Amino acid sequence: MGKKVRRIGVMTSGGDSPGMNAAIRAVVRTCAYYHTDCVGYYRGFQGMINGESVSLNARSVRNTINLGGTILQSARSKEFMTEEGRAKAAANLREADVDAMVLIGGDGTFRGGQVFSKEHNIPIIGVPGTIDNDINGTNFTIGYDTALNTVVEAIDKIRDTASSHNRLFFVEVMGRDAGFIALNTGIGAGAEEILIPEENLGLDRLLDSLERSRRAGKTSSIVVVSEGDKTGKNVFQLAEYVKENLPFYDARVTVLGHIQRGGRPSCFDRVLASRLSVRAVELLLDGKRGLMVGMINNDIESCNLDEALKGKHTINKDLLRISEILST
Amino acid sequence: MGKKVRRIGVMTSGGDSPGMNAAIRAVVRTCAYYHTDCVGYYRGFQGMINGESVSLNARSVRNTINLGGTILQSARSKEFMTEEGRAKAAANLREADVDAMVLIGGDGTFRGGQVFSKEHNIPIIGVPGTIDNDINGTNFTIGYDTALNTVVEAIDKIRDTASSHNRLFFVEVMGRDAGFIALNTGIGAGAEEILIPEENLGLDRLLDSLERSRRAGKTSSIVVVSEGDKTGKNVFQLAEYVKENLPFYDARVTVLGHIQRGGRPSCFDRVLASRLSVRAVELLLDGKRGLMVGMINNDIESCNLDEALKGKHTINKDLLRISEILST
Amino acid sequence: MGKKVRRIGVMTSGGDSPGMNAAIRAVVRTCAYYHTDCVGYYRGFQGMINGESVSLNARSVRNTINLGGTILQSARSKEFMTEEGRAKAAANLREADVDAMVLIGGDGTFRGGQVFSKEHNIPIIGVPGTIDNDINGTNFTIGYDTALNTVVEAIDKIRDTASSHNRLFFVEVMGRDAGFIALNTGIGAGAEEILIPEENLGLDRLLDSLERSRRAGKTSSIVVVSEGDKTGKNVFQLAEYVKENLPFYDARVTVLGHIQRGGRPSCFDRVLASRLSVRAVELLLDGKRGLMVGMINNDIESCNLDEALKGKHTINKDLLRISEILST
Amino acid sequence: MGKKVRRIGVMTSGGDSPGMNAAIRAVVRTCAYYHTDCVGYYRGFQGMINGESVSLNARSVRNTINLGGTILQSARSKEFMTEEGRAKAAANLREADVDAMVLIGGDGTFRGGQVFSKEHNIPIIGVPGTIDNDINGTNFTIGYDTALNTVVEAIDKIRDTASSHNRLFFVEVMGRDAGFIALNTGIGAGAEEILIPEENLGLDRLLDSLERSRRAGKTSSIVVVSEGDKTGKNVFQLAEYVKENLPFYDARVTVLGHIQRGGRPSCFDRVLASRLSVRAVELLLDGKRGLMVGMINNDIESCNLDEALKGKHTINKDLLRISEILST
Repeated sequence: MGKKVRRIGVMTSGGDSPGMNAAIRAVVRTCAYYHTDCVGYYRGFQGMINGESVSLNARSVRNTINLGGTILQSARSKEFMTEEGRAKAAANLREADVDAMVLIGGDGTFRGGQVFSKEHNIPIIGVPGTIDNDINGTNFTIGYDTALNTVVEAIDKIRDTASSHNRLFFVEVMGRDAGFIALNTGIGAGAEEILIPEENLGLDRLLDSLERSRRAGKTSSIVVVSEGDKTGKNVFQLAEYVKENLPFYDARVTVLGHIQRGGRPSCFDRVLASRLSVRAVELLLDGKRGLMVGMINNDIESCNLDEALKGKHTINKDLLRISEILST
Repeated sequence: MGKKVRRIGVMTSGGDSPGMNAAIRAVVRTCAYYHTDCVGYYRGFQGMINGESVSLNARSVRNTINLGGTILQSARSKEFMTEEGRAKAAANLREADVDAMVLIGGDGTFRGGQVFSKEHNIPIIGVPGTIDNDINGTNFTIGYDTALNTVVEAIDKIRDTASSHNRLFFVEVMGRDAGFIALNTGIGAGAEEILIPEENLGLDRLLDSLERSRRAGKTSSIVVVSEGDKTGKNVFQLAEYVKENLPFYDARVTVLGHIQRGGRPSCFDRVLASRLSVRAVELLLDGKRGLMVGMINNDIESCNLDEALKGKHTINKDLLRISEILST
Repeated sequence: MGKKVRRIGVMTSGGDSPGMNAAIRAVVRTCAYYHTDCVGYYRGFQGMINGESVSLNARSVRNTINLGGTILQSARSKEFMTEEGRAKAAANLREADVDAMVLIGGDGTFRGGQVFSKEHNIPIIGVPGTIDNDINGTNFTIGYDTALNTVVEAIDKIRDTASSHNRLFFVEVMGRDAGFIALNTGIGAGAEEILIPEENLGLDRLLDSLERSRRAGKTSSIVVVSEGDKTGKNVFQLAEYVKENLPFYDARVTVLGHIQRGGRPSCFDRVLASRLSVRAVELLLDGKRGLMVGMINNDIESCNLDEALKGKHTINKDLLRISEILST
Repeated sequence: MGKKVRRIGVMTSGGDSPGMNAAIRAVVRTCAYYHTDCVGYYRGFQGMINGESVSLNARSVRNTINLGGTILQSARSKEFMTEEGRAKAAANLREADVDAMVLIGGDGTFRGGQVFSKEHNIPIIGVPGTIDNDINGTNFTIGYDTALNTVVEAIDKIRDTASSHNRLFFVEVMGRDAGFIALNTGIGAGAEEILIPEENLGLDRLLDSLERSRRAGKTSSIVVVSEGDKTGKNVFQLAEYVKENLPFYDARVTVLGHIQRGGRPSCFDRVLASRLSVRAVELLLDGKRGLMVGMINNDIESCNLDEALKGKHTINKDLLRISEILST
């Protein structure tokens, strides 16, 4: 299917996530290992449109495996949503003799990539990089494990103060559409309650649970709230609501915000990024295209990108039950 | 002046800070070393009023030096602001044969303690524990160094995203009245600008500086804002203002919040807490009272509590100049 | 099969690993949730023999999920290897009305547990807790993920010096029989070479590889060596050997040692420990015995303990290939 | 004295220490601020001899303040100990129009620098960068605070295992001639005993102390040993000696090694490095030379380099007393 791949492009797109540099490094080194040229495009699709690129060899990526963020930078590109934009990008790739692309990012990145690939017959492989872990076809996305550790470390700190002052803390974590981060960090940090987009248990249940735990002798509590929770109240309103209804609680709010995206990647994310990206390059060299690489049951697999984009990776609802048991 | 000290009480009050447990441990162990009884009061002045206490021996404080928060908990007490409240506390101490108190906290704690001490002729020594570093008579307060590291580590993470996306981040840090945290973390994290309560350089200067740095080729920037900054705008309004006036910036806000109070204390804070608290007990055993211990030029000193409370520890304004030079 | 379980014992045995406390906590809280008594035995089998136990309720385990080590302590017990020792333990359990045990530990723990269980007809369930990850029937053991992060963080620090001084560092990591830690941290830390017990590639290959990487422009390198590597040389002899044969390298050695066992558990290990231990208790309450719980493909499963002990969890040798590609 | 300084060179020498990059950055940015050229020399004196240099502007040092190690690398140079070597270095500087040098390093660096400066009439200013904190004329050297935190964090981890297994750990830390690291981390990590080069209390005292603490109910202990301790036994021999004499102890050894030099600098070290280096450049621009900058009582001061080199910064022996009290 098409000509032999001699030069591979790589870019990162969407929100940055820890381990993206480990992924870039693995793409570059695997190209070097197979004597294939490698070109990095800056700022995702926008850099492809603008032709902002850099030639990358094995030494270009030294001492990057441990860095957060992405050395190729990331951006959202409205221009790439137009046919003209994508045509410019394709022309740039052709002119630079780039035969195929590795796209590191989330589902928005892959969706744009698929349209582009089909319009211009340029092979792509997707590498799932996002802290949200909401992508089908892989147990874990790059950056998710690091984000979990960052959140749990932050809540551990907040718990020091919560315990010292007998306070209730509402901690908002990332996750507009998916509760992966909230659910796992809630269990990992020993939260009393966890509010996620996928399951609205209602405000009454929250009050009940907090009152019960107070009676059970707990003097401080943490509630982890996903950005996209469906209670109809934001995290500040939630705290107010609880203060009004359970006046014995001195409720406070912390919004963890952007610290969740950055930081040195965990070992898990570095190894995951490395394994996925080696495979991505090998698939391209093997003539494959339109696939996403993923980790399933500890093995690296690949699946059709269109299939991956059909649904969302869903949370394991049994974790809600685990959380309830553990907050006894 | 008065009878020999045979039993010493210890409590923590005000906002908790990392290293308070190292201070408690040092009070307890020093008492044990000098064969003096030690009693811990829970929740600061309120626990003294309620008579909520625990007898502490050398083993009671094992494996606590590395814990954030305070095992004696902390609270604010309105009742202690009344004569009746303080009289109850004094009666409890007398009944428990507690001859003197070590108070670990900030200036509010010391002010209350001085009134109490004079009314009831109970010797006290203050140990400065607060992340704000705003106390006269010591170069450093317990918890301040840890808080600086927590903030800088958080901003390092935010910078990963800022650099990856060419963004401007406003990061709010603690410090209602004092700019110590903002100033030092601003320099430590390489911030473009630092806004502190002590010095209002005006919004025009902020815009000028950001515009200049953009022209100088900087693509991302961090502005560290103290809670108590005097621009007249909160951190969200500041970000809006900059977006309106410098539309090329994609400005975001992160409020670090309560993660700044918690966490494992740094070595510096553990050693500081240990040295100050050993001295506090030794001073009481030596018949001294009404003093605060502090670290001056790396030595442990003591000063009159009333003197310490007369003014505020002021920032070194030369650091603003350093910051300006380094954000060139 | 046998009487209803009304009181469950829990213990930790073998080398401690981060997350053991999260496992204990989950056992205790799950018992509380199902209104079942819970008893902790100190120091593993030895505490069962000595009858050193503590009654545990939901509040006993507060603020422990984030602690390294094990609050129930661990020990090796020669006495438990004798029939008399095990008989004493069984008598103690019977006297205390403990109907079943949850054993948290590695394969040595499970082997001893199985003998005991069959001799005295006491149901047990095993929860895999060891940093070595060498247990069949689970993708991950509790503590392994944290140990990977600890090692990678340490090597990141060593790399700072290696890069600054153009040095070659040999870093010895734990793993007497299994190369899981070496292999994954080697990839995660970007090591040049990885020496593991499972695969002896020979010293010539090591010299070749180091010489090639020097010629390719690398000025510093890390070699990760598993304790149990099969080169026939220990890590210090390896460094000497390389210095003699490749005199341009200034080779140094660091043995990471016991820091690998400790530390706050990662979020992954906390969630893993929680999920496994909830299931362990539920299985016992459900009348099951002689099983080990494990995580397979992100789900909690259980397998027969005798089956689990038949073989060893084997490394994925494809990771050696990945490592070779990435050190290009 | 001599011509106006228009181009300043900067280098790092001796063992690397965290914060050296913050120092380089501050030298570079301060030069830029004062419209002065800045040239970096690689690998310390050896790079000056070889003329291995790089022109540095404000953007060259972006995103370096948080990195361990030194981007200019470091090395020891035998050639610089010869007149010929120094003459070559001087010739290179003259040819490159470098008028003055900022030397970042320890006393060996400053000693070599002073000989060079006097022979060739090239102004130098020393910036104290070493984890050992053994330099006169400053309360703190760059990297020392970070090293303390690294060591304490490592011992915290070891303590998890020590407590879980009732073990005695001997932990060797850096410090061949000075006990600063051992003394402060020993207090910060709650060690039972601390062995330093400056004070040999004898092996009997060690045994006495360990036996006493065992009787007092301690079940695990940490002994921190400085590399240069004067017991006449290395850390492994010490452990053997204790095992023979106190057989109830299961004594283990960990040598922390090179992890102590690396890692992200603490906020303290970043601010210290920044303040010292701004001053170093300002002194050169002001016509000063032969000085070392230092922090005394929280202020930046300077002293004569020859004076600084006359003695060693000595430990505060009162800390030994504090340690004894706290290990009660």
